Amino acid sequence: MMTTAQKRLEQRLGHTFNRPALLQQALTHRSAASENNERLEFLGDSLLNFIIGEALFKGFGRLPEGDLSRIRAHLVKGDTLAEIARELDLSDALILGGGELKSGGYRRNSILADAVEALIAAVYLDAGMDACRDLVLRLYDQRLQNLDPRKMGKDPKTRLQEWLQKRREPLPEYEVVNVSGPAHDQTFDVVCKVAGQPPVQARAGSRRKAEQLAAEKALDRLEGDND
Amino acid sequence: MMTTAQKRLEQRLGHTFNRPALLQQALTHRSAASENNERLEFLGDSLLNFIIGEALFKGFGRLPEGDLSRIRAHLVKGDTLAEIARELDLSDALILGGGELKSGGYRRNSILADAVEALIAAVYLDAGMDACRDLVLRLYDQRLQNLDPRKMGKDPKTRLQEWLQKRREPLPEYEVVNVSGPAHDQTFDVVCKVAGQPPVQARAGSRRKAEQLAAEKALDRLEGDND
Repeated sequence: MMTTAQKRLEQRLGHTFNRPALLQQALTHRSAASENNERLEFLGDSLLNFIIGEALFKGFGRLPEGDLSRIRAHLVKGDTLAEIARELDLSDALILGGGELKSGGYRRNSILADAVEALIAAVYLDAGMDACRDLVLRLYDQRLQNLDPRKMGKDPKTRLQEWLQKRREPLPEYEVVNVSGPAHDQTFDVVCKVAGQPPVQARAGSRRKAEQLAAEKALDRLEGDND
Repeated sequence: MMTTAQKRLEQRLGHTFNRPALLQQALTHRSAASENNERLEFLGDSLLNFIIGEALFKGFGRLPEGDLSRIRAHLVKGDTLAEIARELDLSDALILGGGELKSGGYRRNSILADAVEALIAAVYLDAGMDACRDLVLRLYDQRLQNLDPRKMGKDPKTRLQEWLQKRREPLPEYEVVNVSGPAHDQTFDVVCKVAGQPPVQARAGSRRKAEQLAAEKALDRLEGDND
């Protein structure tokens, strides 16, 4: 029942499915069938977060939590997953409904990224955590080796400032727009304003943390625009 | 080297540590030492997301991805983790710096929640995935059994509308504030406005999804305020 493209994908994944129906489901977009990959994507997303998180935790014993989170966010974001999908030639194996097929859905980043997450869950359900971890570490092999240690130590506010300075843009402004909660458990809402961009907002248990989160979001947006 | 409170906590967790230093580290707030629980919290957060995600995925075979995400978000949020910390009497076992101790840091939700996540990672590193899964499912036993199936099927926009109607508040307004990206891969920024609240913004690959995400955020805020 497998297409040639699906067989090839299986080889590139380095995993032969005991239950090929799982592979089929992982490749099925919701436009094609009600038994689609959305639930697998949910599970795969959390597997990916955990496995990459564990690899960073063990591989970078000295890196603080904020840096681990930031590096992971970069590694698991949709654009990176879509790159991986393209390396796997995943689009040839996708099962799409007629509308998505016509409009080129097999090229769309979000559809490709979701399918990669679903594949990760499919391998987990088919063969367990060790097989799944092997797959993820194989898919990320180069990316984990190429992590730039210079970039890794910098917090988001610093990186946002440097990004803007490099482009001779005005520096960002931060503003606390709301403080709520009892004195011993306050929550801070901070807005970060970057010229020419809609303001981004973030919330955290301290002003400092909320500013960093907001800077991170602003940076994601700027870097996303430039991809 | 363990205090009585830490010994009791170990018993309540139902796990005897092979490496008690992991328990100590999981209980150490950053105010007390540079070898603190922040990195463990990073790993524990992703373990918790995966284990709860897997339990929901397997336990609710018919529930769509959006519902699984929403239920999980409720189960893993800081307030729920702080409740669990209180059930474990975790605060007596915490290791805090002088300042946090004086200001009652052991009562703070964020400190308690972070320590629970760190404990989850500590058990994983001490004894592996099966022991860690057992712990999480034990901590969440009642909460997983008590999930309300009536609430579970509703999408965030519906629930936000119902929440406001029940309180005779005006209905929310949604507005697309930005559309970016190439035609085959557009991104939608949607703002959701609720009277008397700062607007919340969300981004997704479709207008519908961005509206649901924004409604979810608005609802989280409203429900958070009422806890």
